[in-house]
Amino acid sequence: MRTGNRLAIITALIVGIIWSSLAWSYDELVEKKTFTMPTYTTIGGKTIKNVKIGYETYGRLNAAGTNAIFIPHYFTGTSHAAGKYAATDPAPGYWDSIIGAGKPLDTDKYFIVSADTLVNLNTKDPHVVTTGPASIDPDTGKPYGMTFPIVTFRDMVNTQKALCDSLGIHRLKAVMGASGGSMQTMEWAASYPEMVERAIPVIPGGVEASAYLVETLNTWMAPILNDPKWNKGDYYGKEEPVQGVAESLKLITMASRHYGWAEKAFGRKFAAPDKNPLDSWDNAFAIESVLDKATAAGAKKYDANSLLYTARANQLYRVHQDATLEEGVKRIKAKVLFIPAKSDLLLFSDYSKKAMEMLSAQGNKVEYFELQGDGGHLDGLFQIGQAGEVIREFLTK
Amino acid sequence: MRTGNRLAIITALIVGIIWSSLAWSYDELVEKKTFTMPTYTTIGGKTIKNVKIGYETYGRLNAAGTNAIFIPHYFTGTSHAAGKYAATDPAPGYWDSIIGAGKPLDTDKYFIVSADTLVNLNTKDPHVVTTGPASIDPDTGKPYGMTFPIVTFRDMVNTQKALCDSLGIHRLKAVMGASGGSMQTMEWAASYPEMVERAIPVIPGGVEASAYLVETLNTWMAPILNDPKWNKGDYYGKEEPVQGVAESLKLITMASRHYGWAEKAFGRKFAAPDKNPLDSWDNAFAIESVLDKATAAGAKKYDANSLLYTARANQLYRVHQDATLEEGVKRIKAKVLFIPAKSDLLLFSDYSKKAMEMLSAQGNKVEYFELQGDGGHLDGLFQIGQAGEVIREFLTK
Repeated sequence: MRTGNRLAIITALIVGIIWSSLAWSYDELVEKKTFTMPTYTTIGGKTIKNVKIGYETYGRLNAAGTNAIFIPHYFTGTSHAAGKYAATDPAPGYWDSIIGAGKPLDTDKYFIVSADTLVNLNTKDPHVVTTGPASIDPDTGKPYGMTFPIVTFRDMVNTQKALCDSLGIHRLKAVMGASGGSMQTMEWAASYPEMVERAIPVIPGGVEASAYLVETLNTWMAPILNDPKWNKGDYYGKEEPVQGVAESLKLITMASRHYGWAEKAFGRKFAAPDKNPLDSWDNAFAIESVLDKATAAGAKKYDANSLLYTARANQLYRVHQDATLEEGVKRIKAKVLFIPAKSDLLLFSDYSKKAMEMLSAQGNKVEYFELQGDGGHLDGLFQIGQAGEVIREFLTK
Repeated sequence: MRTGNRLAIITALIVGIIWSSLAWSYDELVEKKTFTMPTYTTIGGKTIKNVKIGYETYGRLNAAGTNAIFIPHYFTGTSHAAGKYAATDPAPGYWDSIIGAGKPLDTDKYFIVSADTLVNLNTKDPHVVTTGPASIDPDTGKPYGMTFPIVTFRDMVNTQKALCDSLGIHRLKAVMGASGGSMQTMEWAASYPEMVERAIPVIPGGVEASAYLVETLNTWMAPILNDPKWNKGDYYGKEEPVQGVAESLKLITMASRHYGWAEKAFGRKFAAPDKNPLDSWDNAFAIESVLDKATAAGAKKYDANSLLYTARANQLYRVHQDATLEEGVKRIKAKVLFIPAKSDLLLFSDYSKKAMEMLSAQGNKVEYFELQGDGGHLDGLFQIGQAGEVIREFLTK
């Protein structure tokens, strides 16, 4: 594989796009819409004015408002779970392989909604609508920066609930999300237990962020905090801390992958065959060179402060936030299907097992399906097809 | 546990000291000595003048020079594997639990030698003697900085071989090392197959650094390279890049640990009970606060450039370096006892299994003993006692 090709693929991996054929794509064009709340008061007690989040839908809501499935997204993700905005888009949304007419998340049966989170990283993507540190504070006319309130997954879920209400959704057949989306999924089930029939956490974070994850997220934030261009979050309209974001993305990429993947994709090849890293500090291994380029490209797409806010939301994750863990878990009434990835080195399958034990002990119906492979955490995006029929059946139970 | 205590323990973990009672300590005081080579020419073809490495010994060499065991050290380590330099030392060397009279590495039977590597990180430790980027280049009278030649584990082993020759050692009962020391162990077996009877790689890196490890090491180097005070390695006599080194140590600490350890040591406790990280960016979780302090303290002890050189040596690791992997492994004649840690998230036990398969297939006698626990990679230091009797017996086979 030539380096150019590989770079394209790695870039795709980082941005979470699945390369799949047109034939596989959800077959209606997707329209991105905006949901607005005049104010929203966070769990932490701060009021944000003029909150906007983007969303998209696939399929049709039934008259009773009971056939909906909500899909919250992962750390670097967006609402774009399936289909294309335009026929010329190079690739459809990240879970297109399981969303569409006749597919496990069958758009002939279900009305599927996915929304951009608060503090979404992709502030420069014209298809993304979010409210976060890069938004203009109506009180000052300037970007919030680090004065934006710290938000939790429960806050994201609350804005998603308001969106669902506005669409006439009364019951959710399921909430299904990957990674950070799995945490919002469990939060949905704990915050709105009468509304959520089923929870499908994929590459799940369990019912709270582990101490190890808390510190891992700390290491993702550090390169930004240490980049002089971050300037305490006051960089809008100036040079942005892209080096810090790139280093952060490198750590995120590594945490999202596995040694099996690295071996197959790169092995010990040099970046240039005749330039041995033994001979000069200017020489590098192929994996270093490719990830350097891919993360430098990725860094230009993401907002540094939004990455910090999203990381903090992940650190703060515990179902129902201000309750004890036991109280939070007790609120969950949904049937739960855990879909971890065997080779996950970020959200270990042990996290699912611990959450399953708690839920089983209190009488929830719980199922478990482990994705096979050596792609690491990202198998939750790329290998989700393995779980397709299990998901289809789970939705009818 | 109070934060002060925990800080002390974490600091100890990072510097690799085992807290153990005086009663357990190798019972003779240890003397640190210096071995000098007028010149050494690296595998990369560069000649270094006036090479010095520190070493220490436990036990006595027999007349035939055939009862020696060599112990190369791990990434942040030193030659100090056992005993104390002075009775008042707070703790003995890192493997003191298995080295001493009557212990598995029995100093009544064996003559044990351990040496500081080239480019050792601990340039500020008066007990460490090394030659690396912080050393004075005799040609300029100034520190080498990044003009020091890139060195490999094979170079470290060659200097260790010269030391052994100078001591009258003709055969090695075993070479035994942890982590980076395991890589030197395998390199010893490949470079000097007629001399090395047994290899005991602990928390082993297999027979070459995996692509995933190569990139992990890249992420450890990045915080230093991005610290403006690093100044392309020219910081001696100026302000040092301690922030970069601290971030690097944080990544190293996390890679060396496991979520089970983090859960037990910290859980989701806040750094201060009344300061919820939901409320302010100034608030933090306990694990963040403790590791921040511990790594800031650690950063003052290590030389940034030496960390880069040690990381590059790790990236370049493949047994016998300039051979193909198969040619390098074929050179090994030693019996090999692999001692991985079950919960290792840095040098995965799969690396040992792959190396075992290659060695078994070519007829080497191979054994495998897995350390149990949830301490991660560092179980290779703290839980080595589990393997004590297996090691004792292996040395007689």
